[in-house]
Amino acid sequence: MEEEIMLEEEQITELLDAKQYHKLKEILSEMNEADIAAILAEIPEDKLPLVYRILPKELAAEVFVNMDSDAQEILIRAFSDTELREVLDELYVDDAVDVIEEMPATVVKRILMHTDPEVRKSINEILKYPEDSAGSLMTIEYVDLKKYMTVEDAFTRIRRTGVDKETIYVCYVTDENRKLLGLVTVKDLLLNEYSKKMFEIMETNVICVNTLDDKEDVADKFQKYDMMAVPVVDQEHRLVGIITFDDAMDVLQDENTEDIEKMAAITPTDKPYLKMSVIDTWKTRFPWLLLLMVSAAFTGKIIQSFESALQAQIVLTSFIPMLMDTGGNCGGQASVTIIRSLSLGDIEYSDVFKVIWKEFRVAFLCGITLAVVNFAKLMLFDKVGVMVSLTVCLTMIMTIIFAKFVGSTLPILAKRLGFDPAVMASPFITTIVDAISLIVYFNIAGLILKI
Amino acid sequence: MEEEIMLEEEQITELLDAKQYHKLKEILSEMNEADIAAILAEIPEDKLPLVYRILPKELAAEVFVNMDSDAQEILIRAFSDTELREVLDELYVDDAVDVIEEMPATVVKRILMHTDPEVRKSINEILKYPEDSAGSLMTIEYVDLKKYMTVEDAFTRIRRTGVDKETIYVCYVTDENRKLLGLVTVKDLLLNEYSKKMFEIMETNVICVNTLDDKEDVADKFQKYDMMAVPVVDQEHRLVGIITFDDAMDVLQDENTEDIEKMAAITPTDKPYLKMSVIDTWKTRFPWLLLLMVSAAFTGKIIQSFESALQAQIVLTSFIPMLMDTGGNCGGQASVTIIRSLSLGDIEYSDVFKVIWKEFRVAFLCGITLAVVNFAKLMLFDKVGVMVSLTVCLTMIMTIIFAKFVGSTLPILAKRLGFDPAVMASPFITTIVDAISLIVYFNIAGLILKI
Repeated sequence: MEEEIMLEEEQITELLDAKQYHKLKEILSEMNEADIAAILAEIPEDKLPLVYRILPKELAAEVFVNMDSDAQEILIRAFSDTELREVLDELYVDDAVDVIEEMPATVVKRILMHTDPEVRKSINEILKYPEDSAGSLMTIEYVDLKKYMTVEDAFTRIRRTGVDKETIYVCYVTDENRKLLGLVTVKDLLLNEYSKKMFEIMETNVICVNTLDDKEDVADKFQKYDMMAVPVVDQEHRLVGIITFDDAMDVLQDENTEDIEKMAAITPTDKPYLKMSVIDTWKTRFPWLLLLMVSAAFTGKIIQSFESALQAQIVLTSFIPMLMDTGGNCGGQASVTIIRSLSLGDIEYSDVFKVIWKEFRVAFLCGITLAVVNFAKLMLFDKVGVMVSLTVCLTMIMTIIFAKFVGSTLPILAKRLGFDPAVMASPFITTIVDAISLIVYFNIAGLILKI
Repeated sequence: MEEEIMLEEEQITELLDAKQYHKLKEILSEMNEADIAAILAEIPEDKLPLVYRILPKELAAEVFVNMDSDAQEILIRAFSDTELREVLDELYVDDAVDVIEEMPATVVKRILMHTDPEVRKSINEILKYPEDSAGSLMTIEYVDLKKYMTVEDAFTRIRRTGVDKETIYVCYVTDENRKLLGLVTVKDLLLNEYSKKMFEIMETNVICVNTLDDKEDVADKFQKYDMMAVPVVDQEHRLVGIITFDDAMDVLQDENTEDIEKMAAITPTDKPYLKMSVIDTWKTRFPWLLLLMVSAAFTGKIIQSFESALQAQIVLTSFIPMLMDTGGNCGGQASVTIIRSLSLGDIEYSDVFKVIWKEFRVAFLCGITLAVVNFAKLMLFDKVGVMVSLTVCLTMIMTIIFAKFVGSTLPILAKRLGFDPAVMASPFITTIVDAISLIVYFNIAGLILKI
């Protein structure tokens, strides 16, 4: 697949250099818009407008939607006013909003100037919704029907207006105040008599979302209810737009990326890695590193306060990394499992005791088995003596139990307190577990080795 | 939302206890199948068949698909042969396959015995495909059209057969050997004249997948091309089934869970957390912990070999956790960023030098800024002397540069070698970076502190 695109890219550069525009148009017209956008991302900036202009008009708009914002900006700056208007006319309102959100103010002004007044009003409406809300995600291009329309009326309406709608397969029945009454799918329309009225065939128990709902909740609803589109209503239950499954899929993927970044102690961004400047990347990483570094300093303090014990048994120092790492890994496993389960809805706050009990038993099993292997290794290979081996292995069991406890409860607690549980992943858990493991270590050493 | 379901659940238990089955049926009939399944998961096992039987027949089958396999098994065991047949008749083939895949052999036998012979053949076909392949995911219930059919013929066919199809909105045009020729959407049908023929309006440039393609690639295609369904073809390009967006969304979510688990050094499973036994959970975690523990032992060896240096300057010990943790966190940030970018297709192998150069600059910035803060802290609060502070801060800068290098290159290398890059996340990177940071630390200490 990758190979295929690479080949076509070379071919296109060749045709471009040979000025064989007609041939180029022929090839591009046969391709999928997402693939063309991927190729345009690779060709030199100055040739971008040239190739773009070769595309048939309708395909051009579809390719435009699939390009990243940098490429879009280059094109918009190269467009004549007429060209800009032509592209804008082909865009769905939600796509237009996506484009605008990424552009500098001057470009936004130019875009809005060349948009149809009706559409401009809608764009401005959508821009007013909070960034991560359902309202910011929706499109206003849906098919609306009235309750006394017949199936035949509905088909007539779809045929007349459907070409500009993002989906025609789910239609919404509203009353005179735009209040949402029900939904009718095209499947319903096709499988019913022409004379049936909407109110007879519509589904009235409609899953919908509010304009101010978080987009993550919207994606979760798609996931749960397997819908093709979801209607977006305002506080008065008036239908204002719809969100289609492809947008929900993008949200799902973005939210996953965000969670993964948070789990690695990175401030989430929606920019692709290679598009971010070094300074911006640094900004997403440095604050967390600083916070974690300062927290880790406390662990150092613990070692300092046991300095004399260490000096008496310097061999103990060499097991610190293993104990800290194992604790961190155990805590990380537990926290990531719980964070993911919370986000998938597999567990909730009320399961906290079930989780603790389960993690305790898993920790006990992991602790015993790792300790046994470790004890054998210490006695047979490292030959460090029974008492030191015992100290290390007991510490290991205790540390693992603490680590799994901390790792599994902190994310649940964070969620309960309204924070994002994803932050309570390996880096933070490791820092906490490090301190605990050292305190346990030195105390057990004190008891067993009498230092 | 959560609140709402809780309320209904209590209500249902009450009605059940009061034997108000009629009222119960009324309430349940108004609810969404996914919500009913969620509620049934909470009621006592022995009451499950009772409540299930209250549901209207068609809704019952939809609820059945939404339940987890344990509940499905309970029901199947409680069903009479007639009931079983009724449910099976309502299932799409891909859903039936999903159910069967999770059942013990005896239940599978009983299910297949009561399936329509035609469907049984299809189920057996699908069961033959490898577990994670497109073939195992597809359904065979699609609308197929012929190239000389008119729009009117197509509508007739959809009206006649559409009720049992998983989607009717995308129809596939095949030749007499079932070879895929093109696709026609219902939108195309609605917006064209009744007399138009399929070959005039069909899209011939069809994105399709092969039966043996990995389901992850299938999900990526949905993500990239915003499709409602994708046709599945065999090696001879014959159409054998379709996969719909809702299944692709589930795959996407499963793949994300798998990646996240791998990044935390857990063997992925598809069982929800609370459904797994303690032993099974232990099995997913222990091997990785053991591997990492053994690797961490090498870090201990490094400390041992510098024991005399440490004894001369015992204060150095107290900075080991901070240096190791910071290194691990920096490496983790880089590796997770790269793993995710690889999986989203934002970077590929050919970008490896761009990545290294970028991470080098980010690491340098992070290193310098963290070292400055740390130096100030060491001099002002810890009062450890210039030379020791210098040793710690220089080590920090070097460690961060190494950590970001290792963290960013290993996932790319793993992918290049055909391994899953997700394994090269924090736990492994931390273990490697720990060793590097200690070697750097003791060498710099040797140079600066002359120990």
